[in-house]
Amino acid sequence: MLDRIGMMLPLIQAPMAGVSTPALAAAVSDAGGLGSIGVGATDAGGARAMIDELHARTARPFNVNFFVHATAKSDPVREAAWLDGLAPSFAEFGAAPPAALRTIYTSFADDRAMLAMLLETRPKVVSFHFGLPSADALAALRECGIVLLATATSLDEARAIEAAGIDAIVAQGIEAGGHRGLFDPAAPDDALGTVALTRLLVRETRVPVIAAGGIMDGAGIAAALALGAIAAQLGTAFITCPESAADDGYRTALAGPGAHHTSLTPLISGRPARALANRFTQLAAHLAGHTPPDYPIAYDAGKALHAAAKAHGEHGYGAHWAGQGAPMARAMPAAALVATLAEELAAARSSFGSVVAGVTTVQL
Amino acid sequence: MLDRIGMMLPLIQAPMAGVSTPALAAAVSDAGGLGSIGVGATDAGGARAMIDELHARTARPFNVNFFVHATAKSDPVREAAWLDGLAPSFAEFGAAPPAALRTIYTSFADDRAMLAMLLETRPKVVSFHFGLPSADALAALRECGIVLLATATSLDEARAIEAAGIDAIVAQGIEAGGHRGLFDPAAPDDALGTVALTRLLVRETRVPVIAAGGIMDGAGIAAALALGAIAAQLGTAFITCPESAADDGYRTALAGPGAHHTSLTPLISGRPARALANRFTQLAAHLAGHTPPDYPIAYDAGKALHAAAKAHGEHGYGAHWAGQGAPMARAMPAAALVATLAEELAAARSSFGSVVAGVTTVQL
Repeated sequence: MLDRIGMMLPLIQAPMAGVSTPALAAAVSDAGGLGSIGVGATDAGGARAMIDELHARTARPFNVNFFVHATAKSDPVREAAWLDGLAPSFAEFGAAPPAALRTIYTSFADDRAMLAMLLETRPKVVSFHFGLPSADALAALRECGIVLLATATSLDEARAIEAAGIDAIVAQGIEAGGHRGLFDPAAPDDALGTVALTRLLVRETRVPVIAAGGIMDGAGIAAALALGAIAAQLGTAFITCPESAADDGYRTALAGPGAHHTSLTPLISGRPARALANRFTQLAAHLAGHTPPDYPIAYDAGKALHAAAKAHGEHGYGAHWAGQGAPMARAMPAAALVATLAEELAAARSSFGSVVAGVTTVQL
Repeated sequence: MLDRIGMMLPLIQAPMAGVSTPALAAAVSDAGGLGSIGVGATDAGGARAMIDELHARTARPFNVNFFVHATAKSDPVREAAWLDGLAPSFAEFGAAPPAALRTIYTSFADDRAMLAMLLETRPKVVSFHFGLPSADALAALRECGIVLLATATSLDEARAIEAAGIDAIVAQGIEAGGHRGLFDPAAPDDALGTVALTRLLVRETRVPVIAAGGIMDGAGIAAALALGAIAAQLGTAFITCPESAADDGYRTALAGPGAHHTSLTPLISGRPARALANRFTQLAAHLAGHTPPDYPIAYDAGKALHAAAKAHGEHGYGAHWAGQGAPMARAMPAAALVATLAEELAAARSSFGSVVAGVTTVQL
């Protein structure tokens, strides 16, 4: 599987729409990992431009990630109530909430132009989050030789991915930063951690598994491999690279003591996502009686509130997505980070071998 | 550290008060791991009997675990309201709630008889959950040559453990079954998973770390070692051993499809603990307006409700503690399970070595 993609290291840089850039993904791919971009927040034209830039920047394979969420249903009453709930926060920065909210992203499932663009640009790897496209879309991508990945947070989702003929499953543990890949955010969530989820998927499916969530260094990658994963996917570890699109407020928050506190919240975008605890996640108490609008309609309000606050120098309403490993993030260029991760992985391998040899020879 | 304890395998069977038995712990220790009993639910006399039985059953070292929670504060108004809230559930089984609730366990911090008993019986290893005893108690235990362990769920708790001079930290991830070792259950909980917590503690403290939570097989133990832990602690994996005290209802629930669904709830005992989702954990919606009495006062009600239901053949109110790896539990004698885990660990080690060698030689 890694050979088919052409990866030299068992390491994927997570897509992170809005944070990853073609420069970041190219640097990771050039260094031997698999770089990714997330294009769920743009349209076919925007995605094409990013893919073209990536093709220009690197000859190595890379991954392009899509959101495959259910079509958002507008509910003007709920949206108006939500904006009322946020109004005091806007008022703090002398701003009014937007008059109405828009569906700012189109699901890949509803976007034939995006599929057509993909069949032309043919990135080596395509991955899906929040669900799966139709069988005909998958067949068309497969016919182009594109390797397909999809995220699962549970065994049921993994079984759906296996049944769809996807090439590898990203096992996203509850520790992971950003949007949780739940197919149905309204269904109960068993909130499985990376260790249990990865083992379950490795044991119960026949599809290669990529472990994600809480992994920040070579020891974490080594642990993912020990669990039977073919690779580890790291997101938060790459936010602090200079090549990412994270703004200064986000970088400052990640570098501070607040990195020890993340929160899984649907308040920012309308779907559960893990972010650094900040003024936005703290609105939970204040908004307890409200139901956020559908994803990504709620995110239109979230982005507007962040913009209003940021204009006044307040960065506490940013969507500071981060996983539980955030305190271990390192600010270094992506190529240097990948080289460091590779060295750490090799070191973990040798120390792991000696520990196990020393301890188990007595017994075995 | 493992040498000092005399462990042959990097494997601790978790204490599990009420589920572990001297027979289980002795079998695990004899097989090369470290067996444990939990005596937080008994008094000095009961604990002495269990330790004596263990000393009679095995010449190998074992671990005795204590609860070091804050002294429970009785609040008759809150307790009466709680019993009112549970009354419909009791009524379903033709029973009435208890007239009043008792503090059924004494914290180790408040139990000088327990300390005196320990200083006489001198088990090789003693571990603490929910907090730390006083410095003089720790010094007395240390003078007897007893190796000391304590559970941390966060870096702050780990730092307190390090400052107290404890010999090793059990890093309990959010995936773990049973009671979460939070020092202060009223404080915010960052709910760290095993991967991130273990790496944080290995990197940020100078105390050996034992990883716990979601680990069910040799691959999981291998992952813990790769993360830099000196050993893994497994609880749920041992509940299904014939030597455990789990009743038939508990074993049936663990073997069924419900093992895929666990819930972290304070409803059963008054402190957050992870259990199989069942009729008890589903009371959450019904009891939403209520605050459970202090731990372990609430547990007095929980045990009474379980007894009333069980008398009518309903096992859905049992405290079916289980971690997220529950679907991977195997019903086999403890000695056979430990041997299987050791074989799996050795296999994980060799396959891990080859995977890493194959993938990284290109790059390094």
